[in-house]
Formats: sequence, structure tokens, C-alpha cells
Amino acid sequence: MSEPAQPLEGTPAARVLVAGATGFTGALAAQLVWRHPRLELVHLTARSEVGTPLERLYPRYRVPLALEEFDPARADDCDAAIVAYPHGASGPVVAALRERGLKVVDLSADFRLRDPEEYRRWYGEQPSPDLADDAVYGLTELYRERIAGADLVANPGCYPTAALLALAPLAEGGLIEEVVVDAKSGVSGAGRGGGERHHFVSVDENFAPYGTDGHRHQPEIAQELGALGADVPLTFIPHLLPLDQGELVSCYVRTVDERSGEELLELYRKRYGGEPFVELSDLAPGVRDVRDTNMCRIHIPLGDGAGRVVVFAAIDNLWKGASGQAVQNLNLMLGLPEEEGLT
Amino acid sequence: MSEPAQPLEGTPAARVLVAGATGFTGALAAQLVWRHPRLELVHLTARSEVGTPLERLYPRYRVPLALEEFDPARADDCDAAIVAYPHGASGPVVAALRERGLKVVDLSADFRLRDPEEYRRWYGEQPSPDLADDAVYGLTELYRERIAGADLVANPGCYPTAALLALAPLAEGGLIEEVVVDAKSGVSGAGRGGGERHHFVSVDENFAPYGTDGHRHQPEIAQELGALGADVPLTFIPHLLPLDQGELVSCYVRTVDERSGEELLELYRKRYGGEPFVELSDLAPGVRDVRDTNMCRIHIPLGDGAGRVVVFAAIDNLWKGASGQAVQNLNLMLGLPEEEGLT
Amino acid sequence: MSEPAQPLEGTPAARVLVAGATGFTGALAAQLVWRHPRLELVHLTARSEVGTPLERLYPRYRVPLALEEFDPARADDCDAAIVAYPHGASGPVVAALRERGLKVVDLSADFRLRDPEEYRRWYGEQPSPDLADDAVYGLTELYRERIAGADLVANPGCYPTAALLALAPLAEGGLIEEVVVDAKSGVSGAGRGGGERHHFVSVDENFAPYGTDGHRHQPEIAQELGALGADVPLTFIPHLLPLDQGELVSCYVRTVDERSGEELLELYRKRYGGEPFVELSDLAPGVRDVRDTNMCRIHIPLGDGAGRVVVFAAIDNLWKGASGQAVQNLNLMLGLPEEEGLT
Amino acid sequence: MSEPAQPLEGTPAARVLVAGATGFTGALAAQLVWRHPRLELVHLTARSEVGTPLERLYPRYRVPLALEEFDPARADDCDAAIVAYPHGASGPVVAALRERGLKVVDLSADFRLRDPEEYRRWYGEQPSPDLADDAVYGLTELYRERIAGADLVANPGCYPTAALLALAPLAEGGLIEEVVVDAKSGVSGAGRGGGERHHFVSVDENFAPYGTDGHRHQPEIAQELGALGADVPLTFIPHLLPLDQGELVSCYVRTVDERSGEELLELYRKRYGGEPFVELSDLAPGVRDVRDTNMCRIHIPLGDGAGRVVVFAAIDNLWKGASGQAVQNLNLMLGLPEEEGLT
Repeated sequence: MSEPAQPLEGTPAARVLVAGATGFTGALAAQLVWRHPRLELVHLTARSEVGTPLERLYPRYRVPLALEEFDPARADDCDAAIVAYPHGASGPVVAALRERGLKVVDLSADFRLRDPEEYRRWYGEQPSPDLADDAVYGLTELYRERIAGADLVANPGCYPTAALLALAPLAEGGLIEEVVVDAKSGVSGAGRGGGERHHFVSVDENFAPYGTDGHRHQPEIAQELGALGADVPLTFIPHLLPLDQGELVSCYVRTVDERSGEELLELYRKRYGGEPFVELSDLAPGVRDVRDTNMCRIHIPLGDGAGRVVVFAAIDNLWKGASGQAVQNLNLMLGLPEEEGLT
Repeated sequence: MSEPAQPLEGTPAARVLVAGATGFTGALAAQLVWRHPRLELVHLTARSEVGTPLERLYPRYRVPLALEEFDPARADDCDAAIVAYPHGASGPVVAALRERGLKVVDLSADFRLRDPEEYRRWYGEQPSPDLADDAVYGLTELYRERIAGADLVANPGCYPTAALLALAPLAEGGLIEEVVVDAKSGVSGAGRGGGERHHFVSVDENFAPYGTDGHRHQPEIAQELGALGADVPLTFIPHLLPLDQGELVSCYVRTVDERSGEELLELYRKRYGGEPFVELSDLAPGVRDVRDTNMCRIHIPLGDGAGRVVVFAAIDNLWKGASGQAVQNLNLMLGLPEEEGLT
Repeated sequence: MSEPAQPLEGTPAARVLVAGATGFTGALAAQLVWRHPRLELVHLTARSEVGTPLERLYPRYRVPLALEEFDPARADDCDAAIVAYPHGASGPVVAALRERGLKVVDLSADFRLRDPEEYRRWYGEQPSPDLADDAVYGLTELYRERIAGADLVANPGCYPTAALLALAPLAEGGLIEEVVVDAKSGVSGAGRGGGERHHFVSVDENFAPYGTDGHRHQPEIAQELGALGADVPLTFIPHLLPLDQGELVSCYVRTVDERSGEELLELYRKRYGGEPFVELSDLAPGVRDVRDTNMCRIHIPLGDGAGRVVVFAAIDNLWKGASGQAVQNLNLMLGLPEEEGLT
Repeated sequence: MSEPAQPLEGTPAARVLVAGATGFTGALAAQLVWRHPRLELVHLTARSEVGTPLERLYPRYRVPLALEEFDPARADDCDAAIVAYPHGASGPVVAALRERGLKVVDLSADFRLRDPEEYRRWYGEQPSPDLADDAVYGLTELYRERIAGADLVANPGCYPTAALLALAPLAEGGLIEEVVVDAKSGVSGAGRGGGERHHFVSVDENFAPYGTDGHRHQPEIAQELGALGADVPLTFIPHLLPLDQGELVSCYVRTVDERSGEELLELYRKRYGGEPFVELSDLAPGVRDVRDTNMCRIHIPLGDGAGRVVVFAAIDNLWKGASGQAVQNLNLMLGLPEEEGLT
């Protein structure tokens, strides 16, 4: 019953605004900034519940700051922002914050796709096409240096994060001929809306694929695989798990040549050695192993060496798949140690 | 892939309309009538999704009939109806069906409370106060004969069903001095709406009391306990379980005198001997024991004989707590065996 | 509280023994026989809990018969048996029952694999190799006639059931070049043992692949695909879902030529038209859609016609994946309508 | 993939051994000590899995230390210990550690009950009755000063923790005449064993009371209520929730006089003002609100002022109900700030 105060160590490295804090990813971003030893949480904005302390909506996060209406003028006292508005609504907010000089990590899809046609097909008209050119795709382990120098980071989707971390070593090595990504996510990945589809009774004791005629994370994964040199056939099917947080991708790769399991493992060890948030496991990974952490846990069964490789990657969709990675990126953009506030 | 047909045995005993079939209780009522060997399901009505076969909304129930708008004129070809509209909306529909001569079981609260003031306090203006006088309270095990002769049955709420079956033998014996009912229900008991409160992420891995400053099933339980002679202090607190179907009430009774556990057990055995849908168990009852059945499973620990008695009752809130009991009552009203279509 | 009696209609068509009734599949088989209108449940055997009525272990099934030790001599008064012992333990029991002349459906793997080497690799020494030659593989929709004439049916594994129903039309048409089966099952599929791996806390809010270095359902699926003409590369990975009953397979097929989605759908419609327990759905199937039913629900997204076909199949692993199909097969073996007791 | 190192700040305040680290509470205690900025985790002991790094059993906790056999001699390099062995097995280990001079927090029941007869009745022969006299009952908010000066703390059971925090202000004020504690806990509260009772399929979609003929937390609650002056009739019934971590007690109190809700609230505000791990909430508390935290969240509905008071308290059974409170106590015993390592 004592008043909680933000656990800051000395002068904060940056003053931060979190926009869109009533959604799952915005609320977690707020909490991660709140408990971050070097960041000061200054504003929380939302399109509803204005005036309500965030801790009434998300008691577990214990962030006592109240929600405000978004007002770019008030952002002047901040150095950086994490924006968690929905696709389409995010663009203008990001633009306004960039104009005020804030460094921004955007959790929406508004700046992820480089091809405007592709954006239009899945999301409608792109809100700020000019800004899109400046945005750096925020998969930290792939683009660490560019992120460190960026003013605007397009944080990846949760499925692309897991799939690309699972496939990057193979893609960079030019080894992929074709790939199937069978993906499974907990319900928080779908956001706070969804009406009856995400009613407890619809999800409980259920499991089903969705987006089977096309899902918007497909072009994002394809774009980034292509950027790594793997412009290959990609089948992507997401499924909804009856759990809160957690995501697993099972990637079935036909490779251009035959490598032993040990060779593959060595490839992954080299690629991810020293990475603080990627771990190779010799055990099959469960989403529970990474719950409430920023880890991506990868497992490669030894296989038969016949050109068919399976790779599993587990993340917490709200952490490494969204808000955790956003803070990881923000740390880099602000010159802070990448793990600060995330362990 | 063969066309399903209604599994009727000979000429149906009655043609039935189910109103409000998109909700959880209406949909189950529709399925129970559909698979009932002596009832013909003729119309399904709903306020949305008109034209949609019910099996697209509830594939598991496999009822191919399409939803219609409610039109009393079309009810003329029916003998009976189960109405599953929300409180307030149900009254006028029931009135229209009664005018056409249909026997009606109403799943709403519109005809449960005998005191109009009490109704107004919890639900607003009572829609058809005149009809309320004719309605029989449909707790089958208490009012079997009156139900058999009724044209309108007010089906009890799920919590009152479990609580009253747990307490009736004590109440009828004049044994209760005071009672606490600590009740726990799965999410389907709260219906298909509820927005964020019933979003999967709100309920999953959670458990909480609700309605702690007053819940509308309290006066219903109090009214019926009073009718059995137990006009006593009643504390009633419901809690939300992270599961789909299932309800358990734990009843803590201070009794007017001291009886041994064996005496109490004998009391219950006598009261419920021969009841097809009440079972006494010497094991602590789990809601899973009665899932998808019309059973009420009661357990009384032997206790210390010091005037404090605990009684547990488990039901499936959608079955005995709603649609199963509705069919049980409809069977009685139509002169059919009470268990028909329920086992 | 009235004594439940078996709901038989007239003289039973057969008297049935269920062996191994304490496990999940044996208990459900017992319940399905108990409630079957034409079968009389005469004996329940188990290796533990002898003397206990089954309904104390599985209250929801409400089968009051007590468990007995297995004694072939007592089987003389039966016409047929469903055997649900574990792999290895099942063989000798099946042999003893066959000697007494009973028709047998065996739920274990003991008679599924035609190659003894393959059996040895996954399960150890095959207990009754001579009997294996007489056994018919009990995937009803593929081998209906042979099952009808069989004395011993090897009921398929749950994963093979779903995968083969999903793939059979393609396999029979010679269309498969390569296939990945990404399979997900509820915990009941793994049986009642499992120790800490199946402790609630290990599974809850978790999801993980298992058997990633080889799973014994792989050779069973491969054998049967081969029998249908598809001797092709098969990758099979099972995953454990945090739910009780339900199984979904997502099959990724590279086809030998390019067919439109409509052509494929037509192929499936022809193959499964008239099947009582296979349904094609234009909605993505959830395991909840088939819970507690014997249905297999198949969905084929329209796709791009470029030679990559995705097929989903959902079953209840305890029903169509085990005991439901066992009764379906027993019906055929006894000359009864295939759906009897299953709808 | 970088090696994790213990995140210590400067010289550790104490070197710590955790005994019994394979169970749920021992493993969490190990993780809390591991990530504690002022404690050094030196030894982890267990009766099985010796040699295995703890992170293979509990990947999410990421404690790389390996399990050792318990050997008092090796404890010499430690200042303190948390013991998480089962009741009965814990006593001798605690005795050995005390002999070596370590301060000990014991998570078992071995030193909780002051009446040896009572211990014998519920647990069997008390292993180290002499030590029991020195042990301080470790409900921090009640006995903070004595804990700070203690060498051996008997950490409370999870139900007693929640129930006593809910009732202490009333008990201390002499206000309780009689109380019912209806308690509900997630499965981790029951430990890692339990066989079929805690198999996923037994718990999933289920909810049931247990220990209805007497539960060993009853005398513990009664003893401590008595110590606070409330030697009153107590009914205690625990129930098992289908979730992992979380516990809610709903306490129904008949009070000696009538107080308004506001008076009661004031009583609680005074009692718990300044407590870092107790919070009063005007919202009904859910166990999710305190998941993975050391908080106890208390809610008192305003009530009718007629002498019947309801109090709810929610905790995480593994944190405030076990390992979190153990570290809270250890902090006090070592002269560290009480919250260190717990927020």
C-alpha cells in the first residue's frame, strides 16, 4: 500500500511516451518502460479510458500513470516514443512525433512493407508513405547497426520475428529452396478486440487455423527472406492456441543441398553466438520456456541429412514478438545496452 | 457428408420453436430439441444472423436448420417454444407465443421473480407483469406437478438451480438458520456478450469474484428458499472460473440444531431417491463429472455434527442450469417422460 | 438417484467385453458400448482398480459396471471385444480372445505395422506376429468391406486417422510428390500416464513439439500412404496442445501437377460423398467443432493452383482417433449400421 | 546464447543454498535468489536429477547452476538457506543446516504448528521437535520484527498466508465471531507430484473441492487466528482451480458487532498502510492481478453493515504463498530491505 515510484537509477537516459497503451502490446510496452532503470515513462496515451490509471486496466503491471488523449504538443518533453496504435491509425501519430523530433519505435505494420502495393493489398492506403522510406525494419538480430542509427523503427510482426530468426541462418547461407511455416500463437497476439472470435468460449479447448486464404504476415516474411537472399516459395499458415502468451513456428525447409544436422547446428551456433536473446536448445522448445521473457528459443532436430530441415522457434508474442523487442530496439537507438530493462 | 436428418421416432409429440438460438443457451436448446426422439424442431429465431444455418455458428451441434426473424404468425404451426432471449427482450416474445396458444419455457429472468419491485431493482421494468402470475418456477425437482400442468414455465437461473437443489432438503426441514453460498461458474454462464470481460485473455489463468456488491441471482435464491420455508439470512457470491461449462456451489449452512452427517445424508437420500437427474456422491464433486449432462451431483462431507453443514452441488450451467432443464420441463408439460432426449 | 440400466433396444446384437477400461480410450469405449442400443456391455477388465465401478474413475461416463481382472475363460459369454491395453501388452490378450472366437478390435499398435522390422524398431518384439497377418487396418473409410469381413481389426493411431483421411483422395489419385504433416493433439491422446510431462503445470499455457527425432506414427502413416500408392517423402511432427480432447493435422502437399482449388474440392467431394463421419467444410476447422463426436472435418483452402496444396483435418482423438472408430468398426464386423451408437 | 551470469551488485550480502530445488517452490526460490542483486546462489540440492542444471527442468527460470546431492558439509560456505523439501523430509535437513550456523527459511510444515499433537495428527511424527520452539512463524506482515531476529523461520502455507492477511485486521480487533474460508488454488500449490489427480486431463475444464473431511491448513489457520485473539469457529474448504499459479480466498465473517463498510475499510487501511506487498483494491481481485508477484490484493465489498463481512484476498501461491515470502523473510533475517529482489 506504499505508493509505487518508478525504479529509476540516476538521471534517465530518455523521457518516453507510449501511445496506444490500452492494448496488450501498448500496456506491456508501458510496463517495460516503467520498470526500465534508465528510461522515464512520461506520457501514456489512448483513444479511450482517458484519465484512468493504467493499473486499473492491467493491475498486474502496476503502472500508476493515467492515460491521456494523444496531443503532439505534449510530446515535446519527450525524447522517444513507442507507438502501439492499430495499423492505419499509427501512421499519422508516428508522423506527428517524428516532426517533434522524437525517436519512434512503431509496433504497427504501417512502415514494415517496402512495396506500397503490397501494403495496400493487406491494410489499405498507407498513411505516411514518405516516412516509410526512412524506417528501419526492427528485427534486432538482423539489423542491429541500422537500428542503432535510426530515428524510426518498424517493429516486426510477431510471426515474422519468430520465422525470420528461425530461418535467417539458412536464408543468409543461400540454403533454402522452399519453406513451409506452420505457426501457432496465443490469443494475445490477436489483440484486445476480435469480438466473439476471441470470447473465452470460442477459444477455450479449441485450436484452429485462420487466415488460410492469405495472412498479412506472409508478405512481410517473404519480403525479409528475400532481403536475406531467399526469394523462394513460402507457405505460411497461422493457428490460434488456447493460451494467453506464446508463439511457436515450425519451419519445414527443403534445402538446396544436403547437410548433416551437426553442420546445421554449427551454422546456427556461429550466427547466434553472443546474442543475448537467442538461444539454441537441444530440447524441443515449449512456449512456456520463454513466457514473459524476450528470448527466442530455437531447436533443430538432427534430421536425416536428406535435404529436409525442420527448425522450431518459440517466443513470447508480446515480448520478443512486440513490446520486448521494441524496448530492445529503443535501447539501441538511445545508445543504451541492448538488454537493459529486459532481464 | 450425408445430409443429417432429425432423428425422430414416429410422429413427433410436439412441434417446437426455439427463439434466440444464437446465444449459448438457445443454441443448446435447439440441439437438444433437434436430437430429441419425440420433438420436431420447426423454427429457430434470432435477432441476428438470419438465414444462417445454426451449424455454421455452432458446428459441434450439427443443427442444419437456418435462423429466421421472429414472427409470431409463423409460430402457428408449433405446439411449444423455448425462449432464450435476454432479460427484458424475452417478455414480449413469450407473450406473443402464449397468445398463439404455445406452451412456453422461458430461459430469461422475466417471469422468475414474484415481487415486481424486486424485478425492477435488478432488471428494470417488467415487460409482461400479468403473465408473470401464471408462470410456474421451473425447478423440476421442486415443482414437478405444477410444471406438468403449466402453460408458461420460468426456467430458473443457473446459480439458483444448483443452490436450491443443494439446500432444498434442509430448507424444507426447517433446518437452516443462516447460509452462505459461494458459487463458481464457467464463462458460458455469462452468455455470449461481455466484451473485454469475457475476452479469452481476461479469463484465462484468472479467477475472481464478481457482483460482490449485489447479484441478481441473490433475490431469486432468497425468494425460493423462502417459499420452502427458509426465510433466512443469505450471502451469495459468484466467481468466474476459467473454463467453458460447469458450475459448483459450496453452501455453508448454520443449522438450527445439531445432526450427524449420517442423519443429513439420510435426509438427502429420502428427498432425492428416484430423481433421475440428482445424484448423491460420496466423492467430492467436480464440474467435469457432470459436463454435457443434465445431472446435479451433490456431496455432503460428514462434518463434526456441531451445527455447521457444508453442501456442494455441481451442474453443467448450460444443461441443468439452463437448456437441459428447459427440455426436462418441456417434456413434463407435454406429457412425455422427463428424461426423454436428455440421456 | 435411480439405478441406471443399460439402454438396450430388444435383444442385443452382441455381448461385448472391453479390456483395459481404466485408460482414456478404454473408458470411452466402455461408455460407447454401454449406451449403444444394440450392444450389451458384459465385462470390463483392467490391470488395476479391480472391483471398482468404472463410474468412480470416470463419473461423467456413468457406467456402473465394475472392473474385473482379465480372464479369457470368462470371455466365453461374449461375442466381441475392444482391447485397449498398451502396446506389447495388448497382443497376448487379443490372441487369447481370438482363440475363444471373439471378434476383436484392438486399439494398440500391435497389429498395425505390416513390417515386423518396423514394429521392432518402434515398439520392441511383436507379441503375436502370426495374428498380425490376419488383422485388417481399421481406417473405416478406406477399408470398409475388409473390416466388415474381419475377425481382428487393428484400429489406427489417432494421428494416422486424421492424416490419412486428409490425404487419401490425393494419394489415391497419385497426386502427391511430397508431404509435411504438422500435427497437434490434446493431452488425452498421450494416455493417462506420462508423469511430470503430463502434469497440469507442464502442459497448461504451454505448446511444444515432441518426438522431433522420430515418432512411431510416422511409419504407420507412411505404410498406409504407400498402400494407397503414395510412396513419397513424408515429414511428420506432432505437437502437444493444452487441451483435453481434439486433434488437428495441417498437411502441406507438393503435388505432381497443378490443379485448381475447385478441382481438388471436387475430388474430395466425390471421395467422401455419403460418408457419415467425414465432412468437408468451407470454414477453417477447429477441434472444438468435432469434440465428443466421431466426425472428421476437412478443409481445403482454395490456394493458388501452383502445385502446393494445404489440407486440414480435425478429429476428436478419443472418438474418431480411437474408441469411436473402434465402435464404428465393430458395428461393421457385426453387421450393424455403421453409425449405430455413435450419433 | 551468451553465458548468463548472476546479476549481482557488488559483494553479496549472503551466500545462499536452496535445498529441494526440483519442486515448484524450490525452483522458484532458486530463481529469486539467482536474480537477487544482493544474494549469491551457491548450492542447489535435490533428491533426484543430481548433476542436471536447473534450467533444463525449468527453462523459463534460466538458472544454469547444477543440482547437487544434499551434503551438510558443503553448506559451510553458505550463510543462509531456503529449504523446500516435503513435510517430514525437511526437518532433518533444517536441523543439519542450523547446526552449521546457517539461517534457514523452511517452506515445509515441519515447524509451523506449535502443538505437537496437532502436527502428529496431520503429518505424522514431528522430525525435530526441539527446533520447533525456536522457529518464528513467517507471515511477514504479522511478525516482521521477530522474523528479523530469527535464525529459523517456518514459512506459512499458501492458504494460511492469504486467509490470515485477509482476516488479521478483524482478528486483531476482536471482531470475529465465526468465519468460513472458501479457498481456491491453482495446481502448482499442490506440488509436482499427485499422479493422476494432477494429470492435465483430470484438472482441465474441472473444478472441485478437496480435503472436505479435513485439510491440514485448517489447524494452521486456526492456530494463527487464535494467536491474534480470534479463537473462533473456523470452516475451511479448499478447491482446485484449472490454472497454474494463483490463489483466492473468499472469507465470510460474522462479526461481533455491526460496522459500516467504510469503517472496515479504514481498519484495513490503517493496518496495511505502508506495507509493500499488501494492497487494498476497490475492484474485485483476480488471481491474474498478482500473478508472478509477491502482492496480496485484498478487497472488501461495502456490504450491508448487518454483521456479515466478506473479505477477498488474492495471492500467487508460489510467490507470496511460498517462495516470494521466503525471500521476503530472508531479506529481513539478513538485514536487507524487505522488497529487495522481489519487484
